[in-house]
Amino acid sequence: MKNYNKVSVNDGPRIELHDALGLTGAEISINALPAGASVPFVHSHKQNEEIYAVLEGKGYVLIDGEKVALAAGDFLRIAPTAKRQFFAADDSSIKYMCIQVKENSLEGYTMTDAVV
Amino acid sequence: MKNYNKVSVNDGPRIELHDALGLTGAEISINALPAGASVPFVHSHKQNEEIYAVLEGKGYVLIDGEKVALAAGDFLRIAPTAKRQFFAADDSSIKYMCIQVKENSLEGYTMTDAVV
Repeated sequence: MKNYNKVSVNDGPRIELHDALGLTGAEISINALPAGASVPFVHSHKQNEEIYAVLEGKGYVLIDGEKVALAAGDFLRIAPTAKRQFFAADDSSIKYMCIQVKENSLEGYTMTDAVV
Repeated sequence: MKNYNKVSVNDGPRIELHDALGLTGAEISINALPAGASVPFVHSHKQNEEIYAVLEGKGYVLIDGEKVALAAGDFLRIAPTAKRQFFAADDSSIKYMCIQVKENSLEGYTMTDAVV
């Protein structure tokens, strides 16, 4: 496999990077919802931990029925089996990144995995 | 483990999320370099694929000696053993997210891992 791949992401409702970048340890998507909109379904996962990064705007997520406010700069880990649904605020769009990884898959990291 | 964790990230030279969020499948860091600065060392990894997302500004990365330009909106996958070093541009700072995951750890994702 090539030692690196690069893509430039332009605006769109949803962009998926797994195939575009040849990822093998994660799927990453960039998602945007206009003001007042929501993802039209609730979902959970079988194996994957999800990490959400709010890039712009504000909104909220319902996690197992609990309303969690979201604004730019917020990062969220959600356990696989938790039921989640994302909403933009009534007066603001929201743009966020979703990172899917297999729960408990990370072994060493940073200083225990790096070679300097 | 709790069904979710949330942190709000404020500006700083480097923020690490693994422990703050209780991550089990990734380490995520937010990094900032002022104009003209660089990470002061070259590094590679033993097991981990790294995915970089450029959040603001511009700069470049040297990957196995190849200079790859970076600007906001760029996403990059770098294979574990590739030698990398990040630089801000001379006339711009750069802010980027680094996601470390174990290479080949992802099994199903999105529709093959989701429960809707």
